[in-house]
Amino acid sequence: MAGGLGTRLKDKTVTMPKGFIGIGDLPMVEWSVQKLFAAGIEEVIIGTGHCDEWYQRLAEQYPCITLFKNEHYAETGSMGTLACCVPGVKGDFLLLESDLIYDAAGLSVLINEPHPNVLLASGPTQSGDEVYLEADTAGNFKKHSKNRALIGDLAGELVGITRLTRDTLDKMAAYMKAHLADEPKMEYETAMAAVSQSGDANRIFIRKLEYYLWREVDDENHLAMAKLIYPRIKEAESLRAIRREVLLNPGPATTSDSVKYAQVCPDICPRESEFGDVMEWIGRELSLMAGKPGHVETVLFGGSGTAADEVMISSCIPDSGKLLIVDNGAYGARFAKIAGVYELNFEVFKSSGFLPLDIEALKAKLINGKFTHFAMVYHETTTGLLNPVPELCHFCHEHNITTIIDAVSAFAAIPIDMDTDHIDFMASTSNKNIQGMAGVAFVFCRKEALEKLKDYPMRNYYLNLWDQYQYFQKTRQTRFTPPVQTLYALRQAIIEIKLETIEKRYARYSACWEELLAGVKKMGLKMLVPPEAQSKLITAIIDPPSPAYNFEALHDLARTHGFTIYPGKLSDANTFRIADIGDIRPEEMARFVKVLENYMGSLK
Amino acid sequence: MAGGLGTRLKDKTVTMPKGFIGIGDLPMVEWSVQKLFAAGIEEVIIGTGHCDEWYQRLAEQYPCITLFKNEHYAETGSMGTLACCVPGVKGDFLLLESDLIYDAAGLSVLINEPHPNVLLASGPTQSGDEVYLEADTAGNFKKHSKNRALIGDLAGELVGITRLTRDTLDKMAAYMKAHLADEPKMEYETAMAAVSQSGDANRIFIRKLEYYLWREVDDENHLAMAKLIYPRIKEAESLRAIRREVLLNPGPATTSDSVKYAQVCPDICPRESEFGDVMEWIGRELSLMAGKPGHVETVLFGGSGTAADEVMISSCIPDSGKLLIVDNGAYGARFAKIAGVYELNFEVFKSSGFLPLDIEALKAKLINGKFTHFAMVYHETTTGLLNPVPELCHFCHEHNITTIIDAVSAFAAIPIDMDTDHIDFMASTSNKNIQGMAGVAFVFCRKEALEKLKDYPMRNYYLNLWDQYQYFQKTRQTRFTPPVQTLYALRQAIIEIKLETIEKRYARYSACWEELLAGVKKMGLKMLVPPEAQSKLITAIIDPPSPAYNFEALHDLARTHGFTIYPGKLSDANTFRIADIGDIRPEEMARFVKVLENYMGSLK
Repeated sequence: MAGGLGTRLKDKTVTMPKGFIGIGDLPMVEWSVQKLFAAGIEEVIIGTGHCDEWYQRLAEQYPCITLFKNEHYAETGSMGTLACCVPGVKGDFLLLESDLIYDAAGLSVLINEPHPNVLLASGPTQSGDEVYLEADTAGNFKKHSKNRALIGDLAGELVGITRLTRDTLDKMAAYMKAHLADEPKMEYETAMAAVSQSGDANRIFIRKLEYYLWREVDDENHLAMAKLIYPRIKEAESLRAIRREVLLNPGPATTSDSVKYAQVCPDICPRESEFGDVMEWIGRELSLMAGKPGHVETVLFGGSGTAADEVMISSCIPDSGKLLIVDNGAYGARFAKIAGVYELNFEVFKSSGFLPLDIEALKAKLINGKFTHFAMVYHETTTGLLNPVPELCHFCHEHNITTIIDAVSAFAAIPIDMDTDHIDFMASTSNKNIQGMAGVAFVFCRKEALEKLKDYPMRNYYLNLWDQYQYFQKTRQTRFTPPVQTLYALRQAIIEIKLETIEKRYARYSACWEELLAGVKKMGLKMLVPPEAQSKLITAIIDPPSPAYNFEALHDLARTHGFTIYPGKLSDANTFRIADIGDIRPEEMARFVKVLENYMGSLK
Repeated sequence: MAGGLGTRLKDKTVTMPKGFIGIGDLPMVEWSVQKLFAAGIEEVIIGTGHCDEWYQRLAEQYPCITLFKNEHYAETGSMGTLACCVPGVKGDFLLLESDLIYDAAGLSVLINEPHPNVLLASGPTQSGDEVYLEADTAGNFKKHSKNRALIGDLAGELVGITRLTRDTLDKMAAYMKAHLADEPKMEYETAMAAVSQSGDANRIFIRKLEYYLWREVDDENHLAMAKLIYPRIKEAESLRAIRREVLLNPGPATTSDSVKYAQVCPDICPRESEFGDVMEWIGRELSLMAGKPGHVETVLFGGSGTAADEVMISSCIPDSGKLLIVDNGAYGARFAKIAGVYELNFEVFKSSGFLPLDIEALKAKLINGKFTHFAMVYHETTTGLLNPVPELCHFCHEHNITTIIDAVSAFAAIPIDMDTDHIDFMASTSNKNIQGMAGVAFVFCRKEALEKLKDYPMRNYYLNLWDQYQYFQKTRQTRFTPPVQTLYALRQAIIEIKLETIEKRYARYSACWEELLAGVKKMGLKMLVPPEAQSKLITAIIDPPSPAYNFEALHDLARTHGFTIYPGKLSDANTFRIADIGDIRPEEMARFVKVLENYMGSLK
């Protein structure tokens, strides 16, 4: 709710909405928006009015914000603004005021509450502007007033954070409409109180936290109090912060604290339909990242990226098929190993682990060998070599060859459109660029390609693509118990990539890579892969020639500074690897470069 | 540290250690012990002295408590007691005083700190007994005093919770020894200050939380203050509580909040040796639950229980083998499905899903059919039918038949000893009776049986038992990225089952079952499986005959009361299922029985 004029803070709010008053590093409303997304909220709807251009700029910064403007903000109250937002509300939601600072724990308390409608209250604030609450005997919201004398037993003070169902919101809007003439400036609390007492389904429970840390800012005095309470909120939130370890290994990647905490949620049987909703949402959102709406199906499995590779190799090739696998790194070799175990009809196109492919030779092989299927790794985690997937898959498409791509460490950074790029099947995982936790593998399938699998032989059970797909389509359940909490983390990771966008994520990764590149050049180190074939996601660096160089020593030194690095994986080149994927920032890479410089200096 | 006399609380501590003073529901020290285990501490070592019999009783209640008595407690200070504990300290540890109440968040702050030695400090308490701290310029502990005048810049007040390395402890003990004559009643803070300033490796960083909620109780005045701060601590901790959902579906089971929070930890590359330690510890502890020390190897996979079943069926039978599978439920049928996919030489012994097996017929079939391998489900989740695994595996052992058991929903409740019971391979998972999160599957292997797999054909890749075992043996890493956070949750779940013990866990489950049984009898409902063949873990109840009965309606009603139940799974009997596994209590089952009674009443 951000429509108001903020008249009691006149000098600050003539040309700016009240929510943009800064407390600490950020405007109050931006701090709030960040907390909401971190708590797993998918979309923030802001009801604007006064100086709404400020909110337009905010919405440009955070793609998951939607604005609804109350054109009559000067003549209506907060209920008028709330009513304007109704068309955007898709289900249960949190209702907040824009001029609040608060401990984010309050959000998870409300999200965790068993009551569908619940209002947050606190003990005494002595703010001088208290909204006192009265409850009925069952603890539900009955009455509010700024005049303590009008309230019976005190149930607490209104914070201004409430969880409501869409149905309750509709009832509130109807109440407003019915009373518009008498009370044009109705506050939303008035509608809440009326609706809360009108019937069982809309009761609004009062959840009181006696010592809750919060302040609403309506005047200069509140602002002074908010500044005093701000460090307490920061400390309370810092108690929940997790030690930062910057993982420069090629995945699992560094995750945000909010992704970590998304794993902590009420126990649920994954066959409940609300968990079906979660998996369906995850599948839909992932599909949208991989291709055009409606063209791609995402099939989820409990397992690692290799499990997804095995799903594809074992499920996507009929007995009559003939598969060509490009092996220019450990993951291409793994494709071949899997094809061998299943005794498929396949050949391997072997190529250097660090030099670009001979594309023409590969094309010739595909045609001359009469291959029906083609498998390749998009981005070889072994060395950071980027394969020319779109060009080759385009060629395969022209020649009716089905394409199978391991995009484990490419997806969600390198822009991919399975339609445009002609990729039929593509594997990735929850713990790389998508920045979730390890344990969920997924296979993206172009719908036409997927339908063909129906009659293919079943070569294993747990990792069968067609069965897993079909079962979910029929039941909205996975065949076997999925990793529930890892899926919740993946849901949060998707919220966060939607906020950042894949494009900006790749730009951030690239900026980290540029830091590394500059450092590597300065130190005279050499990269294994020529720059034009590098992914900018993982860099294999050739071991320094000094006999004193020791990977373990470098690793351990980096670790004491909070960085984890990784040895090389090629048998024919001595390297170490620096990845720049995950929730990391260029300034952290710059710090790592300093550590590397110090180590290099110690070798001389 | 619990050796002291507590002289300043004389009337309370003549015959009782100070830590046993109750604040809220529990003695201070027991509250502390519970917080420590919930924070992932594996063992609590208590240095006792005065009235140590109280601690002996506490140690009987919590199997992971070890006591070391300071026989000279009356003549020594806290450092004397700490020195007595040195032999029990295996690595990094938290050092706490017994007479503290505190917000558990302080423990995770210290566990999360990058500094190996770190001391918790707070802002002003005005307790009248403050230990003031002074830091050096790097923020490390330099000096302490109760006399503010002796301290320069105030770095905070000592809380009495410190994280130390074993090396720092050894240095402190050496310091004490060197100064014993001058200072026989040395407090541990004195040794800490000396050691902190003695060299880089032992610096003790001061971590100050300005608003930390805590109190030490040394006198009546402190006790009064502690009682005031207690509700604030309770509320702070309640903000982290997760809504309780009681899962009466047959897994994933209800988990404790501490298992949920164990998933939230610093990012780590699972190929780091410290994560190897975690997996090794998990494997070792699980093995100890399944057989005699040194006899069983536990092999971990990322996946569900079915993945573990597929691991066994695809990895444990040579091409020359002949497998008999008992199918008396969905999971036996699944075994057969998997064997079919891999085109093994196998037959199925089909039996009723709810009546006990014809053991003699089965034995005859095993012999007459010349089977080399035998696969059965220990406890059929489909119906709650308990199969006579020990008897049959004993018979197989006598006839040199390898035994493969799905113990997914039996392990960690029903007492199993793979040696005594002659089980060669056994599957289970992280999300049933062990009360962890879904995503980790494990296969227990008797060592002699395991070694035979070396030469067996590889029929898949991700789920191959021998490869996964060998690779971990060689590298202390899994072949593929494991579900890191789910493994941390499993680690916590193991800590908690060690505290409870398998025996008491089964007793608790059985007590829940008794509640259900009594209710079912009272309502005149019928159980599918005869009582003598029931597991007491899952109960299939025959649908009430009333035409008004509707499973979905019952399910939805139960859900509104926080219970999740599950439909039946047999095609030839209409049932619903109530499981009683997980972190649930008999009184919760009693509440569910009431819900069921209300529903049954509504049918009439």
